[in-house]
Amino acid sequence: MNKQVIEKWIADAIDKASFDEPLLSAVKYVFSTGGKRLRPLMFLEAYALGGNEPNEAVMNFAVAIECLHQYTLIHDDLPCMDDDELRRGKPTCHKKFGEAIALLTGDALMNLAFTLMLNAAKNHPKAAEAAYEFSLLSGGSGVIGGQARELCAQDFKSEIYDIYRKKTCDLIWASVLAGGIMGGLNKKFLDGLKEYCFNFGLAFQIYDDLMDLAEKGSVPEKSYPYIFGTEKAVEKVKICTQKAIDALATSGINSKFFEELALKAAGRKV
Amino acid sequence: MNKQVIEKWIADAIDKASFDEPLLSAVKYVFSTGGKRLRPLMFLEAYALGGNEPNEAVMNFAVAIECLHQYTLIHDDLPCMDDDELRRGKPTCHKKFGEAIALLTGDALMNLAFTLMLNAAKNHPKAAEAAYEFSLLSGGSGVIGGQARELCAQDFKSEIYDIYRKKTCDLIWASVLAGGIMGGLNKKFLDGLKEYCFNFGLAFQIYDDLMDLAEKGSVPEKSYPYIFGTEKAVEKVKICTQKAIDALATSGINSKFFEELALKAAGRKV
Repeated sequence: MNKQVIEKWIADAIDKASFDEPLLSAVKYVFSTGGKRLRPLMFLEAYALGGNEPNEAVMNFAVAIECLHQYTLIHDDLPCMDDDELRRGKPTCHKKFGEAIALLTGDALMNLAFTLMLNAAKNHPKAAEAAYEFSLLSGGSGVIGGQARELCAQDFKSEIYDIYRKKTCDLIWASVLAGGIMGGLNKKFLDGLKEYCFNFGLAFQIYDDLMDLAEKGSVPEKSYPYIFGTEKAVEKVKICTQKAIDALATSGINSKFFEELALKAAGRKV
Repeated sequence: MNKQVIEKWIADAIDKASFDEPLLSAVKYVFSTGGKRLRPLMFLEAYALGGNEPNEAVMNFAVAIECLHQYTLIHDDLPCMDDDELRRGKPTCHKKFGEAIALLTGDALMNLAFTLMLNAAKNHPKAAEAAYEFSLLSGGSGVIGGQARELCAQDFKSEIYDIYRKKTCDLIWASVLAGGIMGGLNKKFLDGLKEYCFNFGLAFQIYDDLMDLAEKGSVPEKSYPYIFGTEKAVEKVKICTQKAIDALATSGINSKFFEELALKAAGRKV
């Protein structure tokens, strides 16, 4: 599946959602500022491992996942959270539309994510189950739980793996699990993909921290490179990447996409 | 159905959700500050009109509706929105836990609402459809759309009915519609309840504005009493209340609960 196909489905879903202004403009803006569409691509790859072609319900589920990811970014950027003025070199949603509209745009995108999943459930027998598992992993005991713990951690070092697993890996695993459920993958494949996602997610997050360090010359105190140093961080990325690739092999998953993705996340050209 | 039963189901659902701290404390706090549980009660009454006793799936759907309502209150109270320090005489969520945690608590409650609805879908054949309709009415073309339009309205007077319908009536109607769908009500009943909800919702919102005026001595510029004056506002509440009650009679709905609720919303003791 290529990214351009997903962009088309995103644009269609936004049109059909008939958001009131200025929400519609804000949503179009955030989707226009780029992004790799990594999570929907991973969802679709997991689905494809089951041997089926994605239908409309599957494509709309992929869009739902990206909507949910975008809401987390919009809320993360708000002044009371990371207070970021730029994302991918462009003004963040609240810089462009004000804090109140950014808050509501994030809310509307989480809502739209579930609307799209529930709509998919009308035409795909496994979509409701996939949506339920996705909601658990993206909620207050998963992604949002991890964000909250990171904000409040007194001893970040002792919680870092839990926090990274929740705030970063859980959304990646939620996406892949949903694709696996809808694609009808067996337990062995799902177990292998879970192991892949948690190792890939950790490598992805630490590599992201390292890129931040290289760009800005500093990293937040609550980050792997700050706590363990750059050298150990680079080493950890390598180890996790290898573990991710090994997990695919061990469970018999033959996916060039997942393999190359792990290498990319570790900064290696493929 | 009485409120105490709903409180028990809310407490159980929060326990089972296993939120990370401090989200768990924040959620328990907001539910401890009171509230009429109006929307779950209306959902359950609509369900009961179909003649069935509510099972676990139905009760958890009721809890989901209250979770969604609570998220709107938490986000509405934030400094970038209404900037309220008190709700029902107690510190708002962000006053108690800080803005970032309040933001995430709202996010986690919307997420939990959909988790509960999707879980209900495993055990109730109509829950997924009810959840889909609910998500549409509570999203960027419904409740959130109305909030965004209110924030940005240049000529509020010309949009007031659209905005009140979306931001207030849509959540009430979403709750009743979900109950009606799960209870298996026919089209005539649903049409009657829709007419009831939009009139009741309008009366409810304007009466709320009037209570604000009585308490604080002033109302926001973007409110019915500010624009049309107190006398017309009082008159409008009466007219809408009567229309709501008439809608029940016209469509053959015999519900003392809905009838008394309409009268209560108009400030009359019943």
